[in-house]
Amino acid sequence: MRQAGRYLPEYREIRERVGGFLDVCYTPELAAEVTLQPIRRYGFDAAILFSDILLVPHALGREVEFRTEVGPVLEPLREDGVAKLSQDGIEERLEAVYAAARVVKRELPSEVALIGFAGAPWTVAAYMIEGRGGTDFANVIRWAWQAPASFGVLIDILTGATVRHLSAQIFAGAEAVQLFDSWAGIAAEPLFRYWCLDPAREIVARLNDLHPGVPVIGFPRAAGANLIAYARETGIACLGLDTSVPLDWAARELQPYVAVQGSLDPILLAAGGAALQVEARRICAELAGGPHVFNLGHGIRKETPPEHVQQLLEAVRGDSSSRLEV
Amino acid sequence: MRQAGRYLPEYREIRERVGGFLDVCYTPELAAEVTLQPIRRYGFDAAILFSDILLVPHALGREVEFRTEVGPVLEPLREDGVAKLSQDGIEERLEAVYAAARVVKRELPSEVALIGFAGAPWTVAAYMIEGRGGTDFANVIRWAWQAPASFGVLIDILTGATVRHLSAQIFAGAEAVQLFDSWAGIAAEPLFRYWCLDPAREIVARLNDLHPGVPVIGFPRAAGANLIAYARETGIACLGLDTSVPLDWAARELQPYVAVQGSLDPILLAAGGAALQVEARRICAELAGGPHVFNLGHGIRKETPPEHVQQLLEAVRGDSSSRLEV
Repeated sequence: MRQAGRYLPEYREIRERVGGFLDVCYTPELAAEVTLQPIRRYGFDAAILFSDILLVPHALGREVEFRTEVGPVLEPLREDGVAKLSQDGIEERLEAVYAAARVVKRELPSEVALIGFAGAPWTVAAYMIEGRGGTDFANVIRWAWQAPASFGVLIDILTGATVRHLSAQIFAGAEAVQLFDSWAGIAAEPLFRYWCLDPAREIVARLNDLHPGVPVIGFPRAAGANLIAYARETGIACLGLDTSVPLDWAARELQPYVAVQGSLDPILLAAGGAALQVEARRICAELAGGPHVFNLGHGIRKETPPEHVQQLLEAVRGDSSSRLEV
Repeated sequence: MRQAGRYLPEYREIRERVGGFLDVCYTPELAAEVTLQPIRRYGFDAAILFSDILLVPHALGREVEFRTEVGPVLEPLREDGVAKLSQDGIEERLEAVYAAARVVKRELPSEVALIGFAGAPWTVAAYMIEGRGGTDFANVIRWAWQAPASFGVLIDILTGATVRHLSAQIFAGAEAVQLFDSWAGIAAEPLFRYWCLDPAREIVARLNDLHPGVPVIGFPRAAGANLIAYARETGIACLGLDTSVPLDWAARELQPYVAVQGSLDPILLAAGGAALQVEARRICAELAGGPHVFNLGHGIRKETPPEHVQQLLEAVRGDSSSRLEV
């Protein structure tokens, strides 16, 4: 999950000075600085490159805008727009991301890993087609059911672009990469299989060919029991768990196949108190029988008091079984 | 799932004449008429009483309003409001619902079952605390983590009210009742266990005592792998599956314990075409090894062409393994 953000005063200071969210993403020194802020403050075991999953559709030629209090707004993609998407030169258009990764890599202590990321094709397609978050996703789902041929072309383009973008982040210094399929949970079972599982398998296979030994972390949020197939059939090294996943089930069904990452409720982190300590220790204990990377089950919330993150870190580090294993 | 609604011209005609959604719910002749409309049109094997899960908080003394294009709006409940909730006389305040059930029961062909329903305590609490749908539910989740004692009082009140409301529907003629936990998927694992699973177990136990042999259907939407515990630990007779549930997994992990109901994507029903037939037959085939009630995986959409429902019914009835088994 993104570690930097509006919950940190040092991040808000940069945003107030610079303005736009995309300006931070596209200015290597700023993206690197913002990536390093939570590492300096907390000493996490790994740094997540500060960026956004919508940089890929932007690089493919779509309009993307981040509006305050609204979030991302894209020009909605229609079927006749697919043929105009171009992967040509996307690495050049996203060069600022890789430049940021190189700066971070140079400044990070050697024992701190750098994690790159991208959105999974289904989730990026959902944003491209809906034009924003917070909808019921009927447009992307209808397209996927009604016109699988053109939808498949779109997913293929996004799969290729995702491999290129993640590969370039690895060349720039990322030691692991994460694939965020934030809207996996809206896909009915056949859509999940075709448009979440199969592309993930292809992305992992191609990255493993290009970069043997670099782990790929998958995070198909709200995928429920589809996590079993995702863990066993995609070749991912590590599976992100959202807050709803029952951990005894994850220990039994998932950890024999992959490392797992998760799954503290970010609302509990913002709330703090005794329940936070209890829940952090419960997560560590339930997943102690297999490889586990402690993480949140969804993104950190802007109202989170920074001292709660420190308290969480102390609770987790008091539990030696759950150090970062990437 | 609700069978009537804006997709039917005969329903729209009544709404245009009567006005408010709640007016239909609280006028027995209208609620009964609207319940019977889809049965007359399609000859379903069971009728779902036309009503709403927010009638229970309304009967407990909360303001509830249905706004066109916005949906339900409630006066948000705060901790100091819990003590003022009163179950006294809720059966009197909801008498119109039971009167509607009696009218429907009298007019339904004897071979057509009548299904009553209520919202599960967690989902009703979520609406009461947030004041509307479409939020990120941070208020209800924070309250559940931070103040489990007062949250538990609220859930207990809703559990009691739900039992009373479902029991009264059964006395009025309902032959099965369904418990809708539409927001089960937002609950982190411990919250799911305390506030979805435990109340469901209590509701089922109390209804089974009062009405032996009347099946209780549970629908914890987006509960993912938590469906295993829900199927095996609550005592429900039938489990509703949302669109995301992998059906081979449901056949293996759930059907040995409970009947299952589901799980066609309502967006596919609205879209229609060959994919609808293929998917309906796939669902029937995957679940043919155990008890299965064909249903949607979420509510029917207002843009659904009524003839698609007819086509779906023909596709499902062509498959003799999946007749209604309630």
